[in-house]
Amino acid sequence: MVTRYLSVISLDDTLALLTREFSCMPACVDVPLEDATGRITAGPVFARYSVPEIHLSAMDGIAVVSAETKGASEQHPVTLPRAARVNTGNVVPPEYDAVIMIEDVWEKEGTYTIRKAAAPWQHVRPAGEDLAESEMVMPSSHRIRSHEIGALATYGITHPKVIAVRIGLVPTGSELVTAGTRPKPGQVVESNTVMAKAMLDAAGATCTRYPFVEDQPEKIRDAIARAVMENDIVIVSAGSSAGTKDYTAEVIAGLGEVLIHGVAIKPGKPVIIGRIDSKPVIGLPGYPLSALTVLREIVLPFLRNFGLFIPEPEIIRAQITTAIAKEVGSDEFVLCTLGKVGGRWVVSPQSKGAGVQMAGVRANAFLRIPRASEGFDAGSVVEALMMVPEEEVEGALIITGSHDPVIDYLANLIQPTGITVLSTHVGSMGGILALRKDECHAAPAHLLADDGSYNTTYIEKYLPGIAVDLLCIAERQQGIVSRDHLTFRDLPGRSFINRQKGSGTRMLLDHELKKAGIDSSAIPGYEREVTTHIAVALAVKSGEADAGMCVYSAAKALGLPFVPVASERYELAFRREHADDPRLVALIEAIRSPAFREILTRLGGYDTKETGQLRKGA
Amino acid sequence: MVTRYLSVISLDDTLALLTREFSCMPACVDVPLEDATGRITAGPVFARYSVPEIHLSAMDGIAVVSAETKGASEQHPVTLPRAARVNTGNVVPPEYDAVIMIEDVWEKEGTYTIRKAAAPWQHVRPAGEDLAESEMVMPSSHRIRSHEIGALATYGITHPKVIAVRIGLVPTGSELVTAGTRPKPGQVVESNTVMAKAMLDAAGATCTRYPFVEDQPEKIRDAIARAVMENDIVIVSAGSSAGTKDYTAEVIAGLGEVLIHGVAIKPGKPVIIGRIDSKPVIGLPGYPLSALTVLREIVLPFLRNFGLFIPEPEIIRAQITTAIAKEVGSDEFVLCTLGKVGGRWVVSPQSKGAGVQMAGVRANAFLRIPRASEGFDAGSVVEALMMVPEEEVEGALIITGSHDPVIDYLANLIQPTGITVLSTHVGSMGGILALRKDECHAAPAHLLADDGSYNTTYIEKYLPGIAVDLLCIAERQQGIVSRDHLTFRDLPGRSFINRQKGSGTRMLLDHELKKAGIDSSAIPGYEREVTTHIAVALAVKSGEADAGMCVYSAAKALGLPFVPVASERYELAFRREHADDPRLVALIEAIRSPAFREILTRLGGYDTKETGQLRKGA
Repeated sequence: MVTRYLSVISLDDTLALLTREFSCMPACVDVPLEDATGRITAGPVFARYSVPEIHLSAMDGIAVVSAETKGASEQHPVTLPRAARVNTGNVVPPEYDAVIMIEDVWEKEGTYTIRKAAAPWQHVRPAGEDLAESEMVMPSSHRIRSHEIGALATYGITHPKVIAVRIGLVPTGSELVTAGTRPKPGQVVESNTVMAKAMLDAAGATCTRYPFVEDQPEKIRDAIARAVMENDIVIVSAGSSAGTKDYTAEVIAGLGEVLIHGVAIKPGKPVIIGRIDSKPVIGLPGYPLSALTVLREIVLPFLRNFGLFIPEPEIIRAQITTAIAKEVGSDEFVLCTLGKVGGRWVVSPQSKGAGVQMAGVRANAFLRIPRASEGFDAGSVVEALMMVPEEEVEGALIITGSHDPVIDYLANLIQPTGITVLSTHVGSMGGILALRKDECHAAPAHLLADDGSYNTTYIEKYLPGIAVDLLCIAERQQGIVSRDHLTFRDLPGRSFINRQKGSGTRMLLDHELKKAGIDSSAIPGYEREVTTHIAVALAVKSGEADAGMCVYSAAKALGLPFVPVASERYELAFRREHADDPRLVALIEAIRSPAFREILTRLGGYDTKETGQLRKGA
Repeated sequence: MVTRYLSVISLDDTLALLTREFSCMPACVDVPLEDATGRITAGPVFARYSVPEIHLSAMDGIAVVSAETKGASEQHPVTLPRAARVNTGNVVPPEYDAVIMIEDVWEKEGTYTIRKAAAPWQHVRPAGEDLAESEMVMPSSHRIRSHEIGALATYGITHPKVIAVRIGLVPTGSELVTAGTRPKPGQVVESNTVMAKAMLDAAGATCTRYPFVEDQPEKIRDAIARAVMENDIVIVSAGSSAGTKDYTAEVIAGLGEVLIHGVAIKPGKPVIIGRIDSKPVIGLPGYPLSALTVLREIVLPFLRNFGLFIPEPEIIRAQITTAIAKEVGSDEFVLCTLGKVGGRWVVSPQSKGAGVQMAGVRANAFLRIPRASEGFDAGSVVEALMMVPEEEVEGALIITGSHDPVIDYLANLIQPTGITVLSTHVGSMGGILALRKDECHAAPAHLLADDGSYNTTYIEKYLPGIAVDLLCIAERQQGIVSRDHLTFRDLPGRSFINRQKGSGTRMLLDHELKKAGIDSSAIPGYEREVTTHIAVALAVKSGEADAGMCVYSAAKALGLPFVPVASERYELAFRREHADDPRLVALIEAIRSPAFREILTRLGGYDTKETGQLRKGA
C-alpha cells in the first residue's frame, strides 16, 4: 500500500510518526575494549571474577595475626611469634588478618617487634573489596566512558556487547563525483553522505556508504533494496524533491510505502520518510545545509529511539543583531555566530543560502524558530543553541565589516591562543553600523570620504560622542583585475563586474571615476554586483566579465594580471571601552607581529609602513 | 645530570614546570576525511577550487537575459527571444544572467512567455558564492566538527593535516597479565595503560601500548628508550613508588633526568616527571584511581600545550552529604555521586580506596579540593565537576541504604528510560539517616525491631512527623552460607564471617541468636566484619571462614550451599513529598513490573507475594 501525504506535515508530527511506526531494535555487537569508549551497553555487564580474589596487602609491611598484637605500645613492645613480609599488592597468607606498615616494625634476626597493636583487617584489601564475581558492573543502556575501559579490563570484560545502529547511506545522482576529483561544470562533489557518515558515526551509529547510483529508477531500486537488507535504517541522498529526475519517492513507494513526503522545516523541506520491510528509509534533500538540518533535527533525534545517546545542544540567551522574518507554519533553523561583546551575548544570523556550506563552518550556534513564530525583531533576546563547547564560544572574537583575506590570516595567527575569530562580511559601512550598536568587537573598514581621508569622517558621523580607535592593518592596493592587463582607463566599453553599494571598493571606484571624469554608464556591467574581492576576480577568470576592481591578493590567488589604481587605508575600528578585552588585545598584537608583516609581504599588494599604527578617536 | 627533588612539589608547580621545560611540538599527519572528526588542524586549510566554479541555477526554470524581461507584467506578457531550460544545479549558460522559476513560465512550441520581469542574477548561485579558490576554509588549531567533513569534501580537501601527539605507553611489572586472563593469586590484570589509551585517544592523542616489561632495570631501560624514540611523550605505568622493585625513576635518571618525583596530590602522589632526549617521560602510579587522577589532572592539561582541545569539566554547586577532612598541603580529588533531590543538588563522596575501580564507574562527578583547604563540613556547598553530560546528572536517581543485587537489576530496568540509578551502599540505618537529611530519593532497608516488625519503628523514631512511605521490594531469605551445608545451629565453634554493625543482616543474626539462646562469643570470627552479602559469600568460598549469613542470591552467585534462617521484608523507603518525582515513579513502576518479578524468581531466594505493596507512613 502506498500512502502519500499530499501536504507537508510538521516536524513534531514527523518525529511522533517515526516513534509510532518503527520498533527501533538496534543490532548488538561485541566490540574490543579499545573501541568501546562512547558505545552504549546492549545488556548488563557482570564481573567475571572477584577483584581482588584473595586478601591483598595495601602497604609494604608485615602480615600479622591482629590478636597477637594486642597490648603493644611504646612502653610494652611486642615481639611477634609469627609474621610474613609483604609488599603492596602481595597476597596476605590465610593465617593472617592485618598488615603493619614496614616503618612501624623493628626487625632483628628474622623476628619482628612492634610498638602499636594492629586492628583486625587494617591495611588489608579484602577479597571482593572492589567487586565480587557475578556483580553487575554497569547496566544496559550505559554509555561507556573512557576511564571505565580500565575497570572493564580489570573485571575480565574484553568485548562488551554494545548497541549498533547500522545505517546505510545511498548517494544518488548522475552528476556526482568523489571528493578529491575537481568537478567539471555541472558535476558536484558528493558530500552529503560523507557528512552524514561523520555526523552519525560520531553519534554512535555504524554507517556504510554505498557506491554512487545514477539517476535511473531501476538502479536506485536495486541500491535501496540492498541497503535495506544490510542495515537498520537507510538514508538516500537527494532525489527527494519533485523535479524530473527525483525518483527516490517513487522507488520507495515501489518497494514499500512512503509515509511522509515533505516536512514543514526550513531548510530541509523536501524530505521523504518511507518504510521498506518494516525499516525506515529516509530521503535526504540535496542542498548541503538542508541535509545538515534533516540529519540534526530528524535523524539524530530518531536515533534516540534506538538507545543512542544524542545530547541536546546547550542554550545561551543572546541578543539577535538583525531581524528575522518568517512565515508561520514551518520550523526554521538559522546558522549563527554567537559571542560576548562587553559582557552581553550577541548572536548574528548567517547567510541563509542552503548551498553555502561555509555557513556551517563559520557558525558556532544556531536558532530553532518554532513554526508558530513570526520571527524576531532586531535586538530581541533569543535562545542560541551552541555547536561548540561553551568555553570556545566564550573565546569568540566577533569581527564585522569589510573582508580581506588577511583577516583569515589574522584568525589563523590567534586561533592557537584559544581565540576563535568569527568574521562576518557585510562591507565597511555594515561594520560601522555594527560598531554603533556595539554588536562586534572590531570592524575592518576602508571608507573614503570626499576629502580623501579614510574612516574618521564616517565614525564621527555614525558614532558621535563614542570613543573609537583605529588601528591600521595595511595600506592596501586596489586595482583593475583582468585577463589581459587592462588599466583603469580601458574600462569604458569593456564588460565589468562591480562590488555592492556601500562597500569601500565601490566608493573608491566611484571616487576614481569621478576624478577621471568617466561616466559609469559607459561601463557595461557596472550594475552587476558581487560581495567579495575574490568573487570579482572569479568573474573575470571565468570570462563572465573583462575587468573588475579588487585587491591584489584576490587577483594573485587566481593568477590574473593586476594594474594598481590607488592605495587605501584598511583599518580596524573598535570602541575604546573594549580595548582591554583579551580577545581584542590578542588581535592587535597579531596585527603588530613580525609574522603578520611577513604574511602581508608574501601575499603582496600591501604596504606595511603604517601597519599597527593607532589613531585615537575623539 | 640527575636532578632529584627531595620533597614533593605542588600540582600548580608541576604544571608550570611542564610548560616551562618542554617545547611541545606535536607531529603533523594527513588523515583521511572519515577519520578527521574531532582532530585539530595543523595549519590553515584552503579551498582547492571555487564552489561553485561557474554560475548555477538555484531553481528549476529557464535561464534568461534579465534585460530582455523588462516590462513584463500580467497585462503585458513578454515572449522571450531566447532562453534555456535549466534544473536546480545546472550550469547557467554564459549569455544568461537570471533564472525564472518554471511555475512562472508559459511554454509554447519552444518559446517562453513570462508575466513578470527578472532582476539580474535572481535565482542564480554565482561562481564562488560559497567559497573561492585559495580562500581559507578554516584556520590552524581548529577542531574539525563532524558536519564540517562534508564542507571539506566539497572544497577538495580529502586528507587534512592535523596535529598528532604520539604517546607511548609502557606497562611494567612482573605481576601483569593481559585483560581476559583470569589473574592467579598475586597477578594483576594490566588496566592502567588500557585506561590511559582510552582516555588519551579520546582527547585526540595517538597512543601506542608497548608489551609488558618485567621488573628488571635493563628491560625497563630498553623499553623506555624505544618508546622515547617513537613518540612525543612516554608514560611508564607503575614502578613509580619507592618500593624495592620500583625502578622507573632510576631508569629515567640513567637515560636522562628526573625533574619531579612526587607531586602533592591525593590520590596519585608517587608520580615521576622526567626528560629523555628533550621529551617528557611520565611515571604513572600503579593504583588505578591514582593513575586516573594523574592522567586527568596532569597529563590531559599538559596535552593542551600540544594544541589538543581538552575541555574543562562543567561545574554544579551542590551540598555535600558527608564531611571531608584533609590535610593542608595536597590537592585532593574525590569521586562522587551527584544528583538533584527535591530541587536541591546533593553530592556524596565515594569510597576513597585508590584500588576500587568501581568508584570510577559509579561516580558521575568529582571534587577538586585545593591544597590550602582543610576540607568541608557536611552540608557545605561545594563545586562538583561533572563526568557526564548535565542532562545525565539531571536524570540521576539517588538510592542510599542497604544493598541487594536486585537494586542493580532495577537500575538495569530503568536505565533505558534515561534514568541512571546511583546506589550508595551504607546499610539500612545509613539509608534512613540519608532520608532524614533528604539527601537521597529512596532508601532500601530491612530493619528489624524487637517486636518483629520491619522498618516502621525506625522511621517513626528517626523521621518523626515526616510522611515516609514504604514499598516492598521482596520478602528476602537470609540464611547460612557455607561450603558444607552448615545450619544456623552449627555456628558455635565454626569460623564465621560477619556483617558490619547497623546492617540489617547483623540485626537479624543477633535477633536469631538471642531467640536461639546462642552467645556470640561462642562463634569464632563473630567480630570479623565485611560490608556486603557477596563479600560474606566470598570469604566462605575462599576458605577464610566456614560460614556467614547472607541472602540466597549471593550464595547462589558463587555456587555455595545455603540454608535459610528467616525471611525479612526488604523495602524501599521514600519521602511522600518525592512520590511524584518522575525518577522515583519509574523505579516504583519497575518494582511492580512483571519483568522484575521474573528476575526475582529467576535469582531465587525472594518471595514476591508482597512485592510492590505500599505501606503508607504517618
